[in-house]
Amino acid sequence: MKQLENLIESIIDRVNINLRETGFDVGPYIRKTIPLNQLVKFYAIYGITSQHPLHLHFSRSNLDGSYFLGKCTVDNSVLHKSDIRGDELKAKGDLFHFQGSKIPLREDEIIRVKDAYLIKTLVHCYSHDPESLEEFLIQNTVSMHYANIHGSPMEGCFLGPFSTVDLTTIHDCIIGAFAYLQVGELSHERVEPGKIWIKAGDLFDFSYCFPGEILDKYITLEPGQSPRGIFMDFVEARKTDFQEVFDVVPLKVPIAVPRNASLNRYALVKGESHIGENVLVVQRAYLENARLGKGANAQENCYIIDSRLEGNNVMAHGAKIINARLEKNVFVGFNSFLQGKQNNPLTIGKLSIIMPHTIIDLDEPLNIPAEHLVWGYIRNAKDLAEHSISIKELSQVEGEFTLGAMNFQGKGSRLVQAFQHRIEHILEANGAFFDGGQNKGHAQMEKDISFTIIHPYSKGPRKGLYPTIDIRP
Amino acid sequence: MKQLENLIESIIDRVNINLRETGFDVGPYIRKTIPLNQLVKFYAIYGITSQHPLHLHFSRSNLDGSYFLGKCTVDNSVLHKSDIRGDELKAKGDLFHFQGSKIPLREDEIIRVKDAYLIKTLVHCYSHDPESLEEFLIQNTVSMHYANIHGSPMEGCFLGPFSTVDLTTIHDCIIGAFAYLQVGELSHERVEPGKIWIKAGDLFDFSYCFPGEILDKYITLEPGQSPRGIFMDFVEARKTDFQEVFDVVPLKVPIAVPRNASLNRYALVKGESHIGENVLVVQRAYLENARLGKGANAQENCYIIDSRLEGNNVMAHGAKIINARLEKNVFVGFNSFLQGKQNNPLTIGKLSIIMPHTIIDLDEPLNIPAEHLVWGYIRNAKDLAEHSISIKELSQVEGEFTLGAMNFQGKGSRLVQAFQHRIEHILEANGAFFDGGQNKGHAQMEKDISFTIIHPYSKGPRKGLYPTIDIRP
Repeated sequence: MKQLENLIESIIDRVNINLRETGFDVGPYIRKTIPLNQLVKFYAIYGITSQHPLHLHFSRSNLDGSYFLGKCTVDNSVLHKSDIRGDELKAKGDLFHFQGSKIPLREDEIIRVKDAYLIKTLVHCYSHDPESLEEFLIQNTVSMHYANIHGSPMEGCFLGPFSTVDLTTIHDCIIGAFAYLQVGELSHERVEPGKIWIKAGDLFDFSYCFPGEILDKYITLEPGQSPRGIFMDFVEARKTDFQEVFDVVPLKVPIAVPRNASLNRYALVKGESHIGENVLVVQRAYLENARLGKGANAQENCYIIDSRLEGNNVMAHGAKIINARLEKNVFVGFNSFLQGKQNNPLTIGKLSIIMPHTIIDLDEPLNIPAEHLVWGYIRNAKDLAEHSISIKELSQVEGEFTLGAMNFQGKGSRLVQAFQHRIEHILEANGAFFDGGQNKGHAQMEKDISFTIIHPYSKGPRKGLYPTIDIRP
Repeated sequence: MKQLENLIESIIDRVNINLRETGFDVGPYIRKTIPLNQLVKFYAIYGITSQHPLHLHFSRSNLDGSYFLGKCTVDNSVLHKSDIRGDELKAKGDLFHFQGSKIPLREDEIIRVKDAYLIKTLVHCYSHDPESLEEFLIQNTVSMHYANIHGSPMEGCFLGPFSTVDLTTIHDCIIGAFAYLQVGELSHERVEPGKIWIKAGDLFDFSYCFPGEILDKYITLEPGQSPRGIFMDFVEARKTDFQEVFDVVPLKVPIAVPRNASLNRYALVKGESHIGENVLVVQRAYLENARLGKGANAQENCYIIDSRLEGNNVMAHGAKIINARLEKNVFVGFNSFLQGKQNNPLTIGKLSIIMPHTIIDLDEPLNIPAEHLVWGYIRNAKDLAEHSISIKELSQVEGEFTLGAMNFQGKGSRLVQAFQHRIEHILEANGAFFDGGQNKGHAQMEKDISFTIIHPYSKGPRKGLYPTIDIRP
């Protein structure tokens, strides 16, 4: 496995060079996190469909347990149980809308991963950067467990576990654990763990930071060690179930799936679960006693346990809900962790927006009213009061506004519009609005996916590396 | 599936153009033989190892149920449950020996299949043609069920079921069912069904032809129909077992396999079977109550049922033995069908050579003595006398020699040497002589093979076609 070891060291060197002004060394974070012999244990998968653009190219890489769809190239990289979803890429000739101008794409969009080490990371492309058309580059970058890279060119960065870089181009940055970033562009910055930061030019700027001692309980990262905390314990406890999904070729889907809904063969379904019309459940989603009403969706790494979604709900990448009931059109953002208890259930009223990276971990039953925006750390009704605002009230904010540890500047109405617009887009793209003829989305189209399982060399100096693979239509 | 239909029609056109002087139309032989919906039912497989050269390239093709190893390109073709084994290809710089001269290869050898429709065909490369180095081309060709193409460039040909073209370059030829050809080069010829023809320049010429009414019972081909006869019934009766091998991901090998032996994951093992040291059992081999002694091997499409191989036995591609005992170093050639009965067993003495395409179908027990060459159609001791000769006697033949329907011209010793030399090479390549350190062969090296399963598009106009796939080290 000498070649694989050399590959990992060369990635470390390249990332460290990018981060040299900070003196940060990514080596201790990854050298022993995934033992080399783990990297040859799991196969990788790619899907082809008649709907999505297709170009996959892998060279000099380990792809251990990763999943690919759409258009993506991976060179000189280690992708451990990561998901690269290129199913929303634009095609050649499509128009990129930006501040009133329309730029036609010269080529199909493609995701390019180079000299990167991504651990259990979700890469979902959605173009946002007018300076970087056609290509989503992820280069000289290390990302830790359950990071989300969403539509973001990225060079020379380190992403902590459970962090999300959303619609933000970043260069030479260190993103702390569980930080969420949606600021358009950032370079040579260190974002502290648990920082939630959403900024749209001069329109608005929302920020919040989890208290360090609270965050540490949920997720901590120290050099030379794997990430620790409640988040890791939660996913580790359910890991064995997932391995079975990947071990076995199932002969039939575990539950009934309506014609216009889609349950990915690499999703896990346990207990009394139910899938309604227009529902989309993607790979690595986990359902246990979960009822998903019409138009709800469950994205990668999301867990829905002993919970009910009443319809048109978005469970974004990495969102987790336990003992919860979501009324219609509730949105749960990236990597949110919403844990009711059997005697302390959580209810969220219709059209409420749970912001990305929200932690709700209940000591008592809690009802979140309809049409509220919710963020931060909440254990009870008192916390909720300091970490939520009605959408109506927020829409009227202009200028500075502070609530608890949250700071807002700008026009509240624009933040609300941005979220609502995006939620609408997600539901539409996922097929929530399909009426039997019009408005097809992923839920209707992913049924014709066919998977190929690929393996690395199992012996010799190339052990652990995959052969060079190039797939086109 | 329109594109797949068009592809098949374009192959038919191209083959027919090559065969136009004969007025032969390949269309009726393949149009309905494999229904289109069958061609999307089975996955294809390729293996990668640290030992073999690797370059696989597939484009605009259906690969339904086929198996690939080594270096091979497939364009505009339909390969239905065929095996393309490029594991004995020479590498760049290797020397090609020909009549005293040594030609260094400019590139690695590669098998190229273009505009061809191969049904359950075995392609095993072993370079023999000094005019066609580096490439084994199979173009504008249709081959029917269980044909063997062994090391043979081939253009514009039709191969009947169970025919074998061995170390022979053919151009614009029609090869009848169960014909065996090893004549170096042939063009614009029609070879009748059941003809066995081995010719080496002026050195020797061996020929035999099965009586038509006998052959028809075993294998018949008529336009518009699938091949019929005892051979087809035999393999069809065992088809379901094989589908299970391909359906399921087995968690462990079904029987004990010594460290220095190899049992392919796509071989089928039933009953009380035993695998000795240095044994090689490849994909699509079928063992049922089979004992394989040290250094024996079972090639593709070979069936060993209620039989015992005492060691260093070669079961060439498609060879079948039932209720038989093979003493040491017995060789059974391509597609031979040796059927003893429980009360009429077959024994073959050591070092005997069963020529390719021999049919032994017993009415009484039969002992074939040691060191004999055997051919043709044999039901009993009387038939044996007319279809065999001791190797010692044959070695003394010079000039013309006739026995029953067999004609021989030339030096018997050279035919014997050619066979013995080749058997030695096969045993060596397969690892029969491995001593723990030296003489590694396939039996020792194929253990590190890792398989990838690939699927065609499952919907849309490309349904049944595979995406363009390119695999390199």
